[in-house]
Order: sequence, then structure tokens, then C-alpha cells
Amino acid sequence: MTPFKLTDELLEQIKQLIADNDTQELRSMMQEFHYADVAEIANELSVEEATYLIKLLDSETTSDVLTEMDEDVREAVLNNLSAKEIAEELEELDTDDAADIVGELPKEIVQEVISEIEDREHAKDIVDLLRYDENSAGGLMAKELVKVNENWTVLNCVGEMRKQAENVTRVHSIYVVDDEGKLKGRLSLKDLLTASTKTHIRDIYIPKVDSVNVNEKPEEVAKIMQKYDLEAIPVVDEIGRLVGRITIDDIVDVIKEEADKDYQMAAGISQDVEADDSIWELTRARLPWLILGLLGGLGAAAIMGGFEEMISQHAILFFFTPLIAAMAGNVGVQSSAIIVQGLANDDLKGSIGNRLVKEMLLALLNGLILAVLLLLFTWVWKGTFNTAVAISLSLVVVIVVAGLVGTFIPLFLHKRNIDPAIATGPFITTSNDIFGILIYFWIAKLILGI
Amino acid sequence: MTPFKLTDELLEQIKQLIADNDTQELRSMMQEFHYADVAEIANELSVEEATYLIKLLDSETTSDVLTEMDEDVREAVLNNLSAKEIAEELEELDTDDAADIVGELPKEIVQEVISEIEDREHAKDIVDLLRYDENSAGGLMAKELVKVNENWTVLNCVGEMRKQAENVTRVHSIYVVDDEGKLKGRLSLKDLLTASTKTHIRDIYIPKVDSVNVNEKPEEVAKIMQKYDLEAIPVVDEIGRLVGRITIDDIVDVIKEEADKDYQMAAGISQDVEADDSIWELTRARLPWLILGLLGGLGAAAIMGGFEEMISQHAILFFFTPLIAAMAGNVGVQSSAIIVQGLANDDLKGSIGNRLVKEMLLALLNGLILAVLLLLFTWVWKGTFNTAVAISLSLVVVIVVAGLVGTFIPLFLHKRNIDPAIATGPFITTSNDIFGILIYFWIAKLILGI
Repeated sequence: MTPFKLTDELLEQIKQLIADNDTQELRSMMQEFHYADVAEIANELSVEEATYLIKLLDSETTSDVLTEMDEDVREAVLNNLSAKEIAEELEELDTDDAADIVGELPKEIVQEVISEIEDREHAKDIVDLLRYDENSAGGLMAKELVKVNENWTVLNCVGEMRKQAENVTRVHSIYVVDDEGKLKGRLSLKDLLTASTKTHIRDIYIPKVDSVNVNEKPEEVAKIMQKYDLEAIPVVDEIGRLVGRITIDDIVDVIKEEADKDYQMAAGISQDVEADDSIWELTRARLPWLILGLLGGLGAAAIMGGFEEMISQHAILFFFTPLIAAMAGNVGVQSSAIIVQGLANDDLKGSIGNRLVKEMLLALLNGLILAVLLLLFTWVWKGTFNTAVAISLSLVVVIVVAGLVGTFIPLFLHKRNIDPAIATGPFITTSNDIFGILIYFWIAKLILGI
Repeated sequence: MTPFKLTDELLEQIKQLIADNDTQELRSMMQEFHYADVAEIANELSVEEATYLIKLLDSETTSDVLTEMDEDVREAVLNNLSAKEIAEELEELDTDDAADIVGELPKEIVQEVISEIEDREHAKDIVDLLRYDENSAGGLMAKELVKVNENWTVLNCVGEMRKQAENVTRVHSIYVVDDEGKLKGRLSLKDLLTASTKTHIRDIYIPKVDSVNVNEKPEEVAKIMQKYDLEAIPVVDEIGRLVGRITIDDIVDVIKEEADKDYQMAAGISQDVEADDSIWELTRARLPWLILGLLGGLGAAAIMGGFEEMISQHAILFFFTPLIAAMAGNVGVQSSAIIVQGLANDDLKGSIGNRLVKEMLLALLNGLILAVLLLLFTWVWKGTFNTAVAISLSLVVVIVVAGLVGTFIPLFLHKRNIDPAIATGPFITTSNDIFGILIYFWIAKLILGI
């Protein structure tokens, strides 16, 4: 397949069809597109045009379109729909997607929307899901699943399953519960089909089943499903009752968001922004880190001011401050990034002490190689061997300290249950800039004997 | 479930059991663990111990363990197995995992291993898969799938499907092909079960099915599956014949690897390394970027050397060079990161020109706020208004230029089909350092009239 590409021409054509009120052509055109593509189109339309499009298509299609749309566009479009219209959309959605949308609605209309949902079981499930923290397994799960009681016979079971499966788009597993609703295990479709109809489920089910607690963090659920290659995982409450299930497609989104967030943190962007957000939103995400950088720079300037008396004899020292600061920053970001990634992927073994020793050796090796290059260059350029030695030696020390700081801070934050990703990027760069320049002038002063 | 945690005590216990040759206890212990957990254990054992463990368990378990193990440990363990033993492991694996392992084997033994595989169909599928580039849909796909001919009746179909399904762990879809093997569409299980046994498949199949070409890049396949919430996607060759299918669990790994790679690039780590790799491997990944930083620093030093005559009257200008360099670097990384992420997620709309205008406004806004702060501080600190104005004004210009460079370079690389992620991190920082300091001294000279 050639992936769908929203061209300017196509967008213009659609806008024109909306303006012309050409419902027939629009309907047949949209039928050709996947709902994710229709959502992409809707994101680029005005709120009025997008609302027109949503009202035009039947709720079976548009409900899926809504879940794929940008949050701000969706909110604006829902604002233009009546409680009954919104309820019709929710009716078509899986409970997890429906709960997400209800969670975004203005409080005043939630009750009215819920009361308009005809399928009362569905409404009850959605309300149940609203109770869970968005940032937990409960906030991710859906109520659609197939569960059977261990005391049923295969015959009961098949009948019940047929009823339940109607609401479930993709059956990943059949879960087995006891009379209290506690998750006991799972059932393979094959065993179910080959067993005699009078067999009890308790005699044929597989007691081994992975599950997560409703309060588990999404990142943890993602790690478990990824490690064990699961396509769905059941969710249990505090006393082990089966309350929902999470599917891999929701987890893919979690993994992507986590990675994007860590990447943005490392780049000094503190909020979840996209290139197409407003200048104001982008400023709010970027400015705080820049102010931190500014303060760091002022600190560095103040330190250099303290060594002002050296400037007449050793101006060259001041020429190398950007180099020292840059190297301290680069090494710090490298070492912290490796630790942050190791922590995120759960593959750091051994003690903090061992890590620091290793990073010290690594930084020492890199530092020495770089120092030799720097020594040769400075010596040739300026011809003052002593100054060249002072600068190069400082570089080694600065790199080692920067590496240790970059390794220690994320490990320390992680121990204190703070997201270590915050330690990468501007934070580590700025503190290493200051440390680096302080060490540099201090060592230079010592060696040059001023 | 509480996720499995490999403690030092558990590892010691297992090592002891291996030393004691206590096969019975080891076997019953490993039976309790998931294969991904056994792989985690094997990664921490010596090669001899890991080999012992692999030989001890039956190939049904160990084949899965092998696929989950670290590549270097797996290679070492396979080295200790005979061609026949390796073939037994391959026999149990899906074709995609088997082909990955065969791809890692030393060339001399590949043929022998393949010839030891008893299931000749399986062997043929593995050999077929070896032909595809690892970095393509063909390199990711497996041969296990359920396909039916459009000319079959429902009755033929059910019989054929039963045979095929034996080899397929999870049936995601039933694909429909014509006599030449070209992918025509898919079949819903429900339609198949409700249709009369004499109906032809061509009359009931759904002609709409997403597919990807064997040569498609894994990142593109990931984007498509993620956008359309697919759990599996069929792969077709150049003339549209169905040759395999890719499942979402493989795609999860692709997404994770892509994100990790971009993150490492931004942090100035050029190869796929982990915290537990050797100092030598880590040096090879980190040193090149540090040398780049060193060159940048030398460039900055040379520029400052060229403005040496200013040092007697305006030493303060030199104190602010780390600040200017840091701000240029930070802004550059921020703007490039947003572009790189937007490109990776395919959500950049509009022309390069528009992007640059937007970034200019954004940088101008941030720059002005920061410049006012800097102006106040410098004025109060040093009391020289003219110098303070020169420094602050330079800061605004430097930030705007850094933002434009950070926006332009990744867009430019992307147009030239070079991975834009390379433009984040040390590359952008270093070039912005040099630009920044040059602009800074040039403007200062202009304003202070030296």
C-alpha cells in the first residue's frame, strides 16, 4: 500500500465540497479513506468544517475518527454536538476510548451525555472507568473482554462466550474467574473446543496468567507486555478481581509517548509540545530551560570575574572557556543519557559505586586522548608549553568530573523516585558548565602559580 | 503479578545448582519462570553455565529463551552447540526468529545447520527469509500465516486453514490470494462461519486490506501499523504476491529501537551501546562527538584570539562567552529536537519558509525576555550600560540565528534523505557555539566602536 498522504490539493477539494454542501460526493469520498486518515483531514479543517464532516458521516465511522483526532480539535467539535449526538458516538466505541472522551467533556454535560447512552451496561462500564487515574493501568484498560466462571461446564461456557464476544472486536484470550470474580487463569480456545461439553472449566483451564494491578504505572505495564510479547494483559483490582484488559495497541502509544517525552527532556523542552503548537505554548516549554542556562552562564561569568587578575598575563586561558564548558556539557549529557536509557529499559546491573568507577575510567581514557590533541594544538599555536599543559590537564579533570556528575545525578534521582530524564540536557549541561569552569581556573592558577 | 526481578541471591543459587549438576532442581526451577526471565538469567551467567542451562532444558523452551537473549551471549552459546542441536532449536521457532538466528551464525556452518532441520518446508521458509535486507519489511516478516485461494469454496477453505493454522501461534487474519498468489483481500472468521459450505471465497472476502512492500523500511511499517492500529500486516513482493506477515510485537521492538537511537544521537552517542558495554565500545561511540566538540572549542578560541585587542578595555565580554555559547547550543538543540520529532512522527505540515518564520518569531520572543534579564544583571553588576546593551543585543541575535540553524539543518538533511537525528546534539551545539561567539564579538565590536 502507498500510505495516505494529505496533500494541499486534496484538502482544498474537501473544503470546497463542504462549502458546496455536496454531501453525496463527500460521503463516497470519505468511505474510501481509513478512519485514521479522515481524522488527519479533520485536524486540518476549521472547527465548523470538521463538525460538518462528523455530522455527515454515520456514528460507526465518526466515533473512530474522533478517537484519532487531535485533542484540541476534538474538544472543539464535541462542543458543537448535542448530548444525544455525543452519546451516539460513545455507543460505538470501546469503553476505554469512550471513557477518554467523556473525561475531556465539560463537567456540566457529562451526566446528560451518559444518560443518553442507550446501552446501560456500556454506560455503567464507562462510568466505572472514569474513576481511575489516567496515569495508571486502570486508566488505560477497557472493559471489553471474554470471561468465564471456573464452575461452568464447557456447554454453558460456549453460550456465554458467544454473548460476550459480540462486544469485543478482537478476542485475545478467554479469562477464567471464580465466583467472586477473582482471576484464576486463562483458557485456550483449542482446549475448549476439544473438551467434552460436560467438562467443567476448572478442570481444563491454564492457571498461569500474567496480569497487572489497576494501580500499576503505564510504563510498567508497557515493560511487562514488551518483555513477555503479550498482545493483551488482564487487569485486576486490589483483591485480585478481574476488572479489565489492556491491549498492545494502547501500549504502543504509551511507549511512543514515553520515548518522545525523554527525548524532549534531554533537549530542554519541558512540556509535551509539537512543532505545530502555538508560539506561546512553545515558549512556555522552552523558556524555563533557557533561563536556567542563562543563570548558569551568569554563574560562569561571575567565576571568571573572580579570576580577572589573570587576564593580563594569561588571556589565552579565557579563550578556552567555551571549549571547557562545551566538553563538560557534552560528556555530562553522554554519560547521563546512557544511564537514563539503562534505567528506562531496566538493564542496569550492579552498584552505583561500580558504575562510577567504570565511568571514571571511561572519562579518563577519553579525557587523555582529547588532552593530548589539545596540548599539541595549543603548544603549536601559542608556543607556551606551561599554559598548554595547564589547559590540557584541566580538561582531563573536567571531563572526569563531568562524567561522574552525569552518572551520579540520574542514579540519585532514580533512587529518590524522581524521573531521571530530567537530569539530562540543560540541567546537566548547565551545572557541568559551572563546575568545569571553576575547576579549570583553579587548576590553571595552581599550575601557573599566579 | 509482581514482575520477575533477578536478585543476586537467585543468581548465586542458580550458579550453585549448575556447579552441583543438580539437573532435577534446575529443571523444576526454570519451569516456573517465563522464557524471557530465563533469558535474563542466562545473560548473567558465564558462557559455559548458559550453555549448560540451554542443553538441560528441552528445545521447545530454549528456542524462545535464545531469541530473547543478548546477541553476544547467544552467539557464544550457539558456538558451543552442534549443528544438529541448533537445528532442533530452529525447528521450534517461528521463521522470522529462526532466520534472525541463522543470520548470526558463522557462514561455514549455516548450510549444515539448515540441512539438519527436519521440517523441509520450515527450512525452505528460513532460507527464503535470509535473502531479505535486515533493515526492510522482508527482514522483519515471518512466513507463518493463514492464506486461502479466492477460488476455493468455504468447505475447502476450512480444511486447508486447519492445516495451516497448526504452524501459526496467533491467527490475526485470514488472507485471500488469487491463483498467482497475489494478495486480494482478507476474510473475516465470522463471514466464513456463517456462509454456506459451497460458497466461493471470492464472493465473501473483504477486498480492502492494508499491506506493505517487502522493501519498505521498518520505521514506515511501524508508522502504518501504529496509525491504523493493526496487530498484523501482510507483506507483498514487487508484483503483489503475498510473501509474509509482520506482527505488532516485532514492531514494538522497532519503535523502541528507533526512539533509543534518536535519543542517543541527540546525546552524542553514535553507536547502539548500553551502559553495560565495554569501556572500549563506549569510547568508540562517544569519542568522535567529543573530538567534534574539541574542534568547535578550538574554533571558538581562535575567534576570541582574533578579538584579543578588546581584552584590556572590555574583559567582561570574555566572561560572557560561555553564556553566549551555552544559549546558542541550548536553543539550537531545542529547535532541532522539535523538528526531528515532528519529522519522525510525520506531523510537520507547511513549507520550510513558514517553519523558519515561526522559529524566528519564537526565538525573538525568548531572546528578548532573556536579554532583558541579562541586561539588568550586567548593568547592576558592572555598571557599564553600553557593554550591557552590547552583550544583551548580541544574545538576541545569537538566539535567533541558533534557532534558525537548528530548524533549517534537520529539514535540509531530511530533504537530502539523511537521517535528521544526526543534526541534534553535539553537531548543532558545536556549530552554534562557533556561530554564536563570532556574532557576539562582531556585534560587540560594532556597538562599542573599537
